[in-house]
Amino acid sequence: MNLLLINPNTTASMTRSMAEAARRVARPDTRITAVQPSFGPVSIEGHHDEVIAAAGVLEQVRQAGTGADAVVLACFGDPGLDAAREATEAPVLGIAEAAFHAASFVSTGFSVVTTLVRTCVIAEHLVLKYGYERRCRGVHGTDIPVLALEEDDGLACVPALEDACRAALARDRSGAIVLGCGGMAPVSAELQRRLGVPVIDGVAAAVVLAEALVQLGLRTSKQGDYATPLPKRYLGWAGALGW
Amino acid sequence: MNLLLINPNTTASMTRSMAEAARRVARPDTRITAVQPSFGPVSIEGHHDEVIAAAGVLEQVRQAGTGADAVVLACFGDPGLDAAREATEAPVLGIAEAAFHAASFVSTGFSVVTTLVRTCVIAEHLVLKYGYERRCRGVHGTDIPVLALEEDDGLACVPALEDACRAALARDRSGAIVLGCGGMAPVSAELQRRLGVPVIDGVAAAVVLAEALVQLGLRTSKQGDYATPLPKRYLGWAGALGW
Amino acid sequence: MNLLLINPNTTASMTRSMAEAARRVARPDTRITAVQPSFGPVSIEGHHDEVIAAAGVLEQVRQAGTGADAVVLACFGDPGLDAAREATEAPVLGIAEAAFHAASFVSTGFSVVTTLVRTCVIAEHLVLKYGYERRCRGVHGTDIPVLALEEDDGLACVPALEDACRAALARDRSGAIVLGCGGMAPVSAELQRRLGVPVIDGVAAAVVLAEALVQLGLRTSKQGDYATPLPKRYLGWAGALGW
Amino acid sequence: MNLLLINPNTTASMTRSMAEAARRVARPDTRITAVQPSFGPVSIEGHHDEVIAAAGVLEQVRQAGTGADAVVLACFGDPGLDAAREATEAPVLGIAEAAFHAASFVSTGFSVVTTLVRTCVIAEHLVLKYGYERRCRGVHGTDIPVLALEEDDGLACVPALEDACRAALARDRSGAIVLGCGGMAPVSAELQRRLGVPVIDGVAAAVVLAEALVQLGLRTSKQGDYATPLPKRYLGWAGALGW
Amino acid sequence: MNLLLINPNTTASMTRSMAEAARRVARPDTRITAVQPSFGPVSIEGHHDEVIAAAGVLEQVRQAGTGADAVVLACFGDPGLDAAREATEAPVLGIAEAAFHAASFVSTGFSVVTTLVRTCVIAEHLVLKYGYERRCRGVHGTDIPVLALEEDDGLACVPALEDACRAALARDRSGAIVLGCGGMAPVSAELQRRLGVPVIDGVAAAVVLAEALVQLGLRTSKQGDYATPLPKRYLGWAGALGW
Amino acid sequence: MNLLLINPNTTASMTRSMAEAARRVARPDTRITAVQPSFGPVSIEGHHDEVIAAAGVLEQVRQAGTGADAVVLACFGDPGLDAAREATEAPVLGIAEAAFHAASFVSTGFSVVTTLVRTCVIAEHLVLKYGYERRCRGVHGTDIPVLALEEDDGLACVPALEDACRAALARDRSGAIVLGCGGMAPVSAELQRRLGVPVIDGVAAAVVLAEALVQLGLRTSKQGDYATPLPKRYLGWAGALGW
Repeated sequence: MNLLLINPNTTASMTRSMAEAARRVARPDTRITAVQPSFGPVSIEGHHDEVIAAAGVLEQVRQAGTGADAVVLACFGDPGLDAAREATEAPVLGIAEAAFHAASFVSTGFSVVTTLVRTCVIAEHLVLKYGYERRCRGVHGTDIPVLALEEDDGLACVPALEDACRAALARDRSGAIVLGCGGMAPVSAELQRRLGVPVIDGVAAAVVLAEALVQLGLRTSKQGDYATPLPKRYLGWAGALGW
Repeated sequence: MNLLLINPNTTASMTRSMAEAARRVARPDTRITAVQPSFGPVSIEGHHDEVIAAAGVLEQVRQAGTGADAVVLACFGDPGLDAAREATEAPVLGIAEAAFHAASFVSTGFSVVTTLVRTCVIAEHLVLKYGYERRCRGVHGTDIPVLALEEDDGLACVPALEDACRAALARDRSGAIVLGCGGMAPVSAELQRRLGVPVIDGVAAAVVLAEALVQLGLRTSKQGDYATPLPKRYLGWAGALGW
Repeated sequence: MNLLLINPNTTASMTRSMAEAARRVARPDTRITAVQPSFGPVSIEGHHDEVIAAAGVLEQVRQAGTGADAVVLACFGDPGLDAAREATEAPVLGIAEAAFHAASFVSTGFSVVTTLVRTCVIAEHLVLKYGYERRCRGVHGTDIPVLALEEDDGLACVPALEDACRAALARDRSGAIVLGCGGMAPVSAELQRRLGVPVIDGVAAAVVLAEALVQLGLRTSKQGDYATPLPKRYLGWAGALGW
Repeated sequence: MNLLLINPNTTASMTRSMAEAARRVARPDTRITAVQPSFGPVSIEGHHDEVIAAAGVLEQVRQAGTGADAVVLACFGDPGLDAAREATEAPVLGIAEAAFHAASFVSTGFSVVTTLVRTCVIAEHLVLKYGYERRCRGVHGTDIPVLALEEDDGLACVPALEDACRAALARDRSGAIVLGCGGMAPVSAELQRRLGVPVIDGVAAAVVLAEALVQLGLRTSKQGDYATPLPKRYLGWAGALGW
Repeated sequence: MNLLLINPNTTASMTRSMAEAARRVARPDTRITAVQPSFGPVSIEGHHDEVIAAAGVLEQVRQAGTGADAVVLACFGDPGLDAAREATEAPVLGIAEAAFHAASFVSTGFSVVTTLVRTCVIAEHLVLKYGYERRCRGVHGTDIPVLALEEDDGLACVPALEDACRAALARDRSGAIVLGCGGMAPVSAELQRRLGVPVIDGVAAAVVLAEALVQLGLRTSKQGDYATPLPKRYLGWAGALGW
Repeated sequence: MNLLLINPNTTASMTRSMAEAARRVARPDTRITAVQPSFGPVSIEGHHDEVIAAAGVLEQVRQAGTGADAVVLACFGDPGLDAAREATEAPVLGIAEAAFHAASFVSTGFSVVTTLVRTCVIAEHLVLKYGYERRCRGVHGTDIPVLALEEDDGLACVPALEDACRAALARDRSGAIVLGCGGMAPVSAELQRRLGVPVIDGVAAAVVLAEALVQLGLRTSKQGDYATPLPKRYLGWAGALGW
């Protein structure tokens, strides 16, 4: 199968590092194409960044046409998820969504450990959207900048993340950790080894769940809320996005 | 005061008609500047349209700089609302949000009557976001296209809307109607006259609430989730949006 | 317009001080009449006080007849709010309700700082009633008695309130403060200056929102739950309240 | 034990008829004193009636002093319940509260059938307050006036009530009926016989639950939210209610 | 009346001690038969224990046939409650359910203090099931093993429980304590004496509420979700449980 | 990998038919072992059946020891799910849980169509447990008995199911169908073909999601609520289940 991995920010090295994380868990016959938008922020650390990134996601979904069997949006805010589902029949998965679902199979309650405190509210809105307001027992910011995770494969951040995870597990009485940033993919295995509880990286979770949905033959419903966008003109730079 | 009214779609005639509705309720000393993005869909009828429109909202907020004392986003999906609040200290109001608040002061429960059935889910997500899952007793689609409201000041749509409102009031045991599209502003007074219950147009509601917040001296909190976007590079057409 | 400001307790000096706070934010052409019931508790610090105060609110609404264009109930428990809405077509606003709505426009989450710990539960019930169980991130009592706020315009209470607000902002990760007592109106500006975040006094918020609703031409729905009370006999001292 | 049954309205014949219903289920050694306020509405059919009735409840609780081992408030809106709990250490039970609890022991879901449609919202607020928003599957008004239940022991209303109950059971997929008015006490047995499902009259339910709480030795908590009212002056007719 | 008290675990001494606690509060004319299953765990400290205990509950309900007027399940997880209700027309009460209801009559918020931290999640699921997610302000584990409560009538555990209760009351701002294990029945009176707030033992609460329901003539609804099990074959050791 | 498929009822032909459905979607290298308990009901159509079936699930999980890489519980009530997770480190998936998750990736809202009306409440409790109270827009019973699905591969039931699905999609404004019984696995493809929307069979969904979790290396958290059962004696037939 063909899996389109969209990094919603515009930092190509981050796209590569997430693609590697994806390939580590993907099946041998899954071809992963990793892309990022031609425009937008170099990292996503707030609502403003996210809105532009969501537009970038749509650009990439459109360019992929019908070539993808499944699409993964590799930013923990799941930017543009509902819109991307309108734009394709292939299943589209956000990494927050995928991580929450995966965590719920192996624990009665989990904690999210993320980057900036100011973005906790974005994760909290997703927790509510996906119905995890009871299973997610806490969202915790570390104020590690997203791009700091890019240096040295994030290794320098492991101690601070480990501390934050331990504090979250204790305070929230949780059984698992969800990492709240696509950029944390490279350090998830090490954290799981240190903590002794499931540590879920959304990129990996989304990849295997996307494969599962394709195997099941499930396609995005085109009856109702995710129907194909109505034909209409888009002006300006967005001209190519009109339907 | 200076009020920036942003029509998130790119149909200039709709901007004008909403500006007129806004001026009808605004105070004499409120200067209303009505704009629309330079790019994006001519109407907003789904998540895909909405994502691009949200980016357009940010373009306009940025162009206004510090010139606006308050900002109103005149599309019922409140596209880009949280992001716009990061981008300015002026209060920013969505018309769905404003309409829900206004309706809650004059009824224990209200019904939303909107355009396309496929967009009901967008209103329902906002109902949840703003905490109206109990006070909003139903969201009802009419499958009137947004741009049909543009012709003849929407008069042709009044009978269909009246029928839908009456059905909603009866089924939901509601005491008020919230109109679920900025394009319905011109017909709200007529509908209220016919129905005998409060009929709330979000554009008008947002204008008077924006004036009230300015009068109160309230500004968007810059501590925490709505803090100014972090300084970073935006690539491509979005270059001017980087902070 | 004529705005009736009802202080639900019977301390006339508190009525005056809230009237001053109201006039500071009101438009020039708003005539504020401030009254209190002829009976009931000198301050409202529990459910028992509140029930009698709610009856007092109805006395005052009835005496005002149709003379008021809008009514503000200036006690943070919003006593008698639904009943007052039955009794008049003018919009009626509670100060807790108004403060919550105002805070939600300028922050993703706010904290309430109030007087007695024992009254926190009253605020919490209102938080639920108005749908703010997610946006209100905490209700905090200070055990400052209501009437202590009356002395010296509440200045003596500012340091304790500032400390409580800072603790609430940190613990709740909030972006704004809602003051949980009408008697705190005189100190809100000073607290906002010290804290650097929006501090919302419900009296001021209710006044400007009442003006906005009148400007919009909105009246309490008389279809359904807020319909005029049914004609019936009231016995004893309440005789004049029968319809 | 001494049980104080307060009819919150001022219709003495209704007090008598509810007292009879109470005595039919009470234990032999339970002495029931049935009273009504000296003031207030002859029936409770809206928020306005209810506020004055709540004040009347407090009058009666105060007059009873420490003479009651338990108190039952016999109006389905549970007027003044929290306030009454402050005013006495004896357990105080509302009939809506008692009926919901009783129904939840014998069905996974129940329907409320009440009098006026306009009062449904009062029951719905109680459903939320008591946590029954999932177990209560519907609240249905019949527009039978409260005092119509007084004539002929309510027998004339039985056919209409039976129809409403059958419709509610079918529509809500419920297993039990809660009668939404203290005045329906005399007809509950007949309705249960006709319908073949549990039909719960709140007056009877509250009486037996009050006996149970007394038997258990439970008293209202005086630590925290139901602590005795603070000592303070009450003015006017309410002077005797100050603490 | 005949009350069947089922201890869902297989420790006979615990059955006896709970029977004693039950008889202390029961009316003189209530005959209590206390039993335990012929199979299953000696204590219930997790989901695994609970599932087998639930099967044991059904064994005992079946053996009792129509001889019981009411049934009490004396384990705080309320194991097999819904199934037991299908199997008999007599009211069936779980002790968690009974305790929550009792606590809600005497406080606006209560805290649960239970045995093992790992079983808190079971109590939390019940809190949600019964609609107490707002009134129950916290569930606290003490890691006292269930069978430690059996020695010396639990007296050795009192100091640790008292500490845990005090901490819970302070942290949760609660007005009452619910004891989260049937084995705590013998120490509830002593804890209430020490703490000065209502301390509710579910066994005692369930007994008096069961008596109340019988007095009211309420039987489990056989229309709908609690209808008698459908006739069918059960294989293996469970053969006698088929209907 | 080794996947243990447990049919919680004791009808071997149903085990076989579900195993076939599982194998149709499983990867080539997944070895599926399909079993049923040695005891319990021949079908699960209520809470009573379910409790015994849950015990049967534990018997089978225990017998499998560490031989399974993942476990699927193939009854829509997910009987014994939490307990099974305590009993093994392998991921355990319920088919309701899996189906809800799968449906949420391809629609904003889905409807459940199940067998007996009396079991709808079981599905509704799971909807709440898994956080789908907003995404699941309705649960609909058809009163088709579970074992009727066994005859002729369920083909005779297709027309009735199709009608029920169409009615559910229209009434609930849903975009997908979740089939509410493991026995419906053989007819899901045909229903999807006829309806033109995603139709999700939980057995197939659970199989592919189990494969995904194994691929991800996720194991059930043993810290906290799903820790291995404590060592203790189980009496009677359950002796082998003690730890």
